[in-house]
Amino acid sequence: MRITSRDNPQVKEICGLLASGKKRREAGEYVCEGFTLLGEALRRDLAPKRVFCLEGLEGRLPSLACPVHTVSQSVLEKLSDVPAPQGVVFTLPLPAMDALPEGSRFVALDELRDPGNLGTILRTADAFQMDGVILLGDCADPFAPKTVRSAMGSLFRARLCRRTAEQLAAEMAARNVPLYAAALSPDSKRVTELDVHRACVVIGNEAHGVSQRTTDVCTGSVIIPIESAESLNAAVAAGILMWEMRR
Amino acid sequence: MRITSRDNPQVKEICGLLASGKKRREAGEYVCEGFTLLGEALRRDLAPKRVFCLEGLEGRLPSLACPVHTVSQSVLEKLSDVPAPQGVVFTLPLPAMDALPEGSRFVALDELRDPGNLGTILRTADAFQMDGVILLGDCADPFAPKTVRSAMGSLFRARLCRRTAEQLAAEMAARNVPLYAAALSPDSKRVTELDVHRACVVIGNEAHGVSQRTTDVCTGSVIIPIESAESLNAAVAAGILMWEMRR
Repeated sequence: MRITSRDNPQVKEICGLLASGKKRREAGEYVCEGFTLLGEALRRDLAPKRVFCLEGLEGRLPSLACPVHTVSQSVLEKLSDVPAPQGVVFTLPLPAMDALPEGSRFVALDELRDPGNLGTILRTADAFQMDGVILLGDCADPFAPKTVRSAMGSLFRARLCRRTAEQLAAEMAARNVPLYAAALSPDSKRVTELDVHRACVVIGNEAHGVSQRTTDVCTGSVIIPIESAESLNAAVAAGILMWEMRR
Repeated sequence: MRITSRDNPQVKEICGLLASGKKRREAGEYVCEGFTLLGEALRRDLAPKRVFCLEGLEGRLPSLACPVHTVSQSVLEKLSDVPAPQGVVFTLPLPAMDALPEGSRFVALDELRDPGNLGTILRTADAFQMDGVILLGDCADPFAPKTVRSAMGSLFRARLCRRTAEQLAAEMAARNVPLYAAALSPDSKRVTELDVHRACVVIGNEAHGVSQRTTDVCTGSVIIPIESAESLNAAVAAGILMWEMRR
C-alpha cells in the first residue's frame, strides 16, 4: 500500500509507538529505523510486523513476509525519530522479558533513566558478552526510539529481564553469584580487588546512584577509583565494570 | 538590571552563543547553566562575564564581580538549552587552547562529532586525571551547550588543546610518549598487552574511527577486544582506555 497522508491511521499508530512506552506494551510492538538495523533484525530471525519504505528505495528491501508500505518523504519524516530519516522504518514484536537468562555474569540497572545510557550499556553488554541485563525499578524503556538507536543491533542480541531487587538477590544467591552495587562509597571494594568474572554488578540512577533498597540486598559494593570529578557517567562506569568482568 | 523581554539584545546575544561555535569564538565567551556549575566555576577562580538569575532566586547567588541580571521565567527559558532551566545562566571567557599541557598521559580525539560523547570524555579524563585532551581536526565544540552539560564541572578542569595529527606526533615523539590509534583492526595490539601508563591514545570519529591520516603518524594501534557488536560507543571505549592508562 502507498501512504502519502501524514494523517493515515497507521502513521498515527507508529507515532504513538514512538512516543509512548504504554502504547508499545499495549500493542506488543516497537519501532526501528534504517536498512542496517532491518538487515540485523532479519539475520537474528526477528520478523518485522510492518515496514514503511521511502518510495524509490523499495529495491533495497530484502524479501519480507509482512505488509510493506511505500511512503512519501513527508510521511517518512513523520514516522522517524531523527531529523534525517534513513529510508525505512519498521516494527518488531516486543520480546518477553520474564525469564532470568542462564549464566553468571550480569549487569543490573537500578532506575537508570537516560535512554541513551541504556542503549549504550546494551551495546557494551553485547560487546563483552554479558549473560544478561536486568532492569530494576523504573528504568528507561529499552524499546524507546533513543535506546533503539544507541543500542544499534545489540538490542536484538540483548538478554533482558525485569526484576525487583529482592527477586534478583534471591536468584543470584541461588546461583551462588555475588551481587555488587557500584557505589562511590568508602566501604566499597576496588574493582581490581574483587573477582568480578562471576558476578552481577548493579549500576545506579544517573543522579542518585544505587538505591538504599537495592544496596541493602547486595552482597557488597564495588568502586572504580577516581581521582577527580564527582562521578563517572553511568554508561562509562558500566563499560569499565563490564570490561573488568571479562578482563 | 531586570530583563523581561525575550527580544532584549543581551538575550539575543546569549541565544547566539548557545547556537553557534563561530559566535562563541568571536565573542570569546560561552554559556553555562545552573547553580552547581556556577559554584564550581567560582571555586576554580573562573570569572563569569555576566549572570542571568530567575527573579526570586537572587538570594542563592554568591557574590559576583560581573553584571547580574534578573530575568523572568519566560526569558530564562529562552536563555536555557534545556526544557526545565535551573534558575541561573551565566557566561565564562573561552580559555586558550594553544599550549600542549605538561605530562605524558593524553587522550586525543580525531574528528569526534557528538558533543555528548565529548563532554562524557572530558568528565572521564578528569576522573582519571589525564594530563590533557587534544582535539584533532573537526571535533565537536567543547563549549557547545550539550558538551558543557555532559562534562559538568570537569570542563573547568580540562586541559584542552587543538593540534593537527602531524603536530601531535612530533610533540609526542619529542617527549618520548608513544601515540596509539584505537582501532578495531587485526594489527592492533590488545590494550592489556601494551604499557599505556605513559601514552597518548587517539579515539576516532563515531562512524569512521581514526582517520588514515592520523593512523599514519601513530606509533601503533591499540584494541579493546570485543566479542560481539560492531564496536563500542566512543565515550565508552575512551573510558576503558583511560581506565587502563591509570590501572
